[in-house]
Amino acid sequence: MWGFCRIFFVTVLFIQFAFLLSLFYIDIDTWTKTSSKILRFSGLRCDNNPQTSDFLKLKTGRENDVLVLAPPNTPLQYPIRGFRVAPMTKTRIPGLAVQTQNRDFYKVSLRVQKGLLSVMDVKDDKKIVFGQNEENLTISSSSLEHLNELLSRVTYTSTIFHIKTEDLAYFSFENHEVIFPIEIRRRSVPNLYDPGKDINSQVTVLVKAFLRYKELNALIQSIRVNYPKIKIIVADDSLIPEKVVGDNIEHYIMPPAQGWFAGRNLALSQVTTKYFLWVDDDFVFLNETRIESFVEIMEAVPELDVVGGQVGRNQFAFKLNYEEGNSEEGGCISRVRGFYAPLSGFKGCFFVDGVVNFFLGRTDAVRKVGFDPFLRKVGHSEFFIDGLGELLVVTCQGLRIGHQERTNTPEYRKYRYPPKADSQNKMTHHYFKNHLKCIKY
Amino acid sequence: MWGFCRIFFVTVLFIQFAFLLSLFYIDIDTWTKTSSKILRFSGLRCDNNPQTSDFLKLKTGRENDVLVLAPPNTPLQYPIRGFRVAPMTKTRIPGLAVQTQNRDFYKVSLRVQKGLLSVMDVKDDKKIVFGQNEENLTISSSSLEHLNELLSRVTYTSTIFHIKTEDLAYFSFENHEVIFPIEIRRRSVPNLYDPGKDINSQVTVLVKAFLRYKELNALIQSIRVNYPKIKIIVADDSLIPEKVVGDNIEHYIMPPAQGWFAGRNLALSQVTTKYFLWVDDDFVFLNETRIESFVEIMEAVPELDVVGGQVGRNQFAFKLNYEEGNSEEGGCISRVRGFYAPLSGFKGCFFVDGVVNFFLGRTDAVRKVGFDPFLRKVGHSEFFIDGLGELLVVTCQGLRIGHQERTNTPEYRKYRYPPKADSQNKMTHHYFKNHLKCIKY
Repeated sequence: MWGFCRIFFVTVLFIQFAFLLSLFYIDIDTWTKTSSKILRFSGLRCDNNPQTSDFLKLKTGRENDVLVLAPPNTPLQYPIRGFRVAPMTKTRIPGLAVQTQNRDFYKVSLRVQKGLLSVMDVKDDKKIVFGQNEENLTISSSSLEHLNELLSRVTYTSTIFHIKTEDLAYFSFENHEVIFPIEIRRRSVPNLYDPGKDINSQVTVLVKAFLRYKELNALIQSIRVNYPKIKIIVADDSLIPEKVVGDNIEHYIMPPAQGWFAGRNLALSQVTTKYFLWVDDDFVFLNETRIESFVEIMEAVPELDVVGGQVGRNQFAFKLNYEEGNSEEGGCISRVRGFYAPLSGFKGCFFVDGVVNFFLGRTDAVRKVGFDPFLRKVGHSEFFIDGLGELLVVTCQGLRIGHQERTNTPEYRKYRYPPKADSQNKMTHHYFKNHLKCIKY
Repeated sequence: MWGFCRIFFVTVLFIQFAFLLSLFYIDIDTWTKTSSKILRFSGLRCDNNPQTSDFLKLKTGRENDVLVLAPPNTPLQYPIRGFRVAPMTKTRIPGLAVQTQNRDFYKVSLRVQKGLLSVMDVKDDKKIVFGQNEENLTISSSSLEHLNELLSRVTYTSTIFHIKTEDLAYFSFENHEVIFPIEIRRRSVPNLYDPGKDINSQVTVLVKAFLRYKELNALIQSIRVNYPKIKIIVADDSLIPEKVVGDNIEHYIMPPAQGWFAGRNLALSQVTTKYFLWVDDDFVFLNETRIESFVEIMEAVPELDVVGGQVGRNQFAFKLNYEEGNSEEGGCISRVRGFYAPLSGFKGCFFVDGVVNFFLGRTDAVRKVGFDPFLRKVGHSEFFIDGLGELLVVTCQGLRIGHQERTNTPEYRKYRYPPKADSQNKMTHHYFKNHLKCIKY
C-alpha cells in the first residue's frame, strides 16, 4: 500500500510539473534558448521592436523547443504526435481513451486555448456531455465503454486562422492530467520539377560577370564543347556592359557594380530547371568536367541540396561551428576545415557546411536561402551561414573544373579586393542580420 | 481483480498497437495521405523516379503525419515533444523515469535506430548497464532510485549526419513499451532585418516593366510626390529597352519578353529591405496611398507575410480550396471569393489566400515561395497557390492605389493577352509542378 501511495504521490508531482511546464512554457532544456519562443507562446506583441518581432518570426516551428513529458501511471490514452488539423476545420481527435478499474461514475475533461471542442452526433446526451462547442469539454458516464465511445467522437475546431501554429490540449481524469499538442497547419501544394529528359532540361549554368569578358567568353566556349545546348544565365553588373550573345544564353544587365551576391541572386531567380550549376566567370570546363556526375548524386539522394566539386586542385570545403550566445550579445561562428561524415554510396563525398564556388544546387531549396544582395564584394561563406540548418551540403572529390590564368586588371582588382571598410560593414551587417558578435575564419 | 486484468489486457493491446503503428509507419489519420512519408521513413530510394524523390523532399517535416499514441497505465515517464539534438552530438535525454511498485529487481530497455545510447559517468556499473554506446541500452538495478538516477544520465548521439530528420526511441519496462520522437536538427542562424529608421530603409517598391514606358514614368512620378527617396526596382523585359533614370531607381534589363513572373522574381531577388511593395507599371500613387499603413500592420503582426490593398475600387481577394486527391491523379484547386476571419485589431483586414497586385510583402518569407519564372504571360493566383501554407496573407480595405487609363497598344496586347495555347501550357505545367489535375477559377 505504501508503495502505491508513493507512486500516486510522485505521479501527481510529475503531472503538476509537466502541467506547470507547459502552462508557463518554461524551457528547462539547457541546450535550447527559447526566450523568444516563450514570448511567442504567450502571444506578446513586439510592435516597438521589429528586430524581436523578426526574431520571433524566424523561430516559427521552434515550438518543439518546449519540453513536454508524458507522466507515468495515468489511465489516459492520447496522441503525442501526428494530430494535425487544418485551420478552422472540425477534426476528430484520434486515440482518446481512458483505461481504469471499475467505478460507478467516470468523468473526463478536455481543455484547449485556440479552438472549440465537441462530441460528434450527441443526441440527447446533454446530461452526459457538457460544454459542446466550447474550450472546456466534460464527458461523464456510468459506463467506461460508453465514455470511451464518446471520447472516440471528440472533435477539435480551431477558432483562429493560421497556417503554421499549434494549440495544447489538457486531458484529465480525476487527479491525472496530460498534455498533448495539436498542430494547426494549412496544407501546402506540392512543388515539383519536371524531371526532364536530358541534362539540358535538368540543369542551368549560372555565371556572375563583371568586367572580365575575355574570361567569360573563354568559359562559355569551354562549356559549349561538351554542352552545346545547356542554358547559361549571365548576371552582369559591369560598368560598361558588352553584349554576350549565343543560343541558350540569357544575359541580364544590372546597374553598375551592384555586386557579387546580388548577381548570384538575380541569376538564381531566373532558373526554371530543377538544378543549377554555379561557376565563376574565370573558370574553364575541362574534358573531365561532367555535370551529369553531380545530377546523379542529387537524384540518388533527394535530401541533398548542394553538391560541391573542386576547382583545379582546390576542394575548399568547411564546417561552421555556431554558438548561439545569449540573446543580447548574439552568437559566434567559426569556419574550420574538415567534414562531418561520408555520404554512403558515393566514395569521396562528405557532408560539410560549405563548399567551393563550383557546385550544383537544388533550385527550390537554394532559393529558400538565397544570396543576400547586401553583400557586394565580400562574401562566399555568408551564403552557407544563411544556409546552416536549411541546406544539406556535400563535397565530392574528382568533380573538377579548371581555373583560367589570373589576369586581373587594376580596375577589376579595385572592385574585387575591397578596402577594410567593406569587411567592417559586413561585420556590422552580420551583427544585425545573423545576430552574431564574432566570426572567425 | 477482473477489472485489473481487463486494464492490463487493453493496455498491452494499445502498446502493441502504437508499437506496430510507428514500427511500420502506418498512417491511420484519414486527413493525411503520407504514402510518400512512409517511403521516406523506411528509407527507400527513388532514383528512377525523380518526381517522387522531389515529392519526398518537399514532404520533409511531415514526419508528424505519423500518429503515435501514449498508451495508458504505463509506469514510464518520457519526453513526448521538445527533445531536439544536434546531429552527431551527445545529448542527455530529459525526463526519463520509472514509477512503479516495489520489486526486488528493475530492468528497463531503450532502443533507437539512427544513433547510439549511453549512460554518462558509469564507473564500474558494467553489470548494471548493458550496451553502452550501442543502439540497444539496458539498465537494471535492485533499487528504483538508483535506476532512475541512471536513467537521468542517459544520452543519445545520432550516428547519421542530417539537418532535419528524426529518430524514434522505444522505451520499455517489463511488458510496457512506449515510443517518443527524437528530433535531429542542425541549428540555423537567425536571419533578421535591420528594422531601419524610416520608410525608405524599410520598404522597396518593385515594378515589372514591359513596353509601357509612358505609364511607368507616370507611376514613378506619382511615387515621388510623397516618397522622394524610396528605392524603386524596375525589372524590364521590353523588346527595345529604354533608359529609366533617377535617384534611387535600379533598372534591370532582361532578355526580351522574358515574362511576368520572371520579372517579379528578378526584382524580388534584389531587395535589401525588410519589406517590398508590389505595384503594376500602370498603377498610380494617389495622395491617400500610404505605404506606412501597410508597414504598421506588418510590424504589429509579425506573423503576417503579405498585406494586400485595393486598386481603385477593386479589392480582389480570394480563398483557394485545395483537395489533395490521390497520389496518381493529383489534386484540385478552386479559387473562390471571400475570406476566412477578420484580423483582430485592424478593422477591414481579413485573412485570405490571395490578394490583388498591390501588396506589401515580407521579403524573406516571399522569397521562400518566389514567383515561378516559368509563367511568362499567364499568372497571378499561381504565386498564391505556391504560397499556400507558406504565406500568411491578409487583405485590407482602404489601402488604395489608383489605376491609370488603359491605353494598351496592339503590340502590348499581343503579349499581355496570350493565345489559348499558353493557358494550356500553364495547365500542363501545373499538373507536373503542383501535382494538380484541375484548377477552377
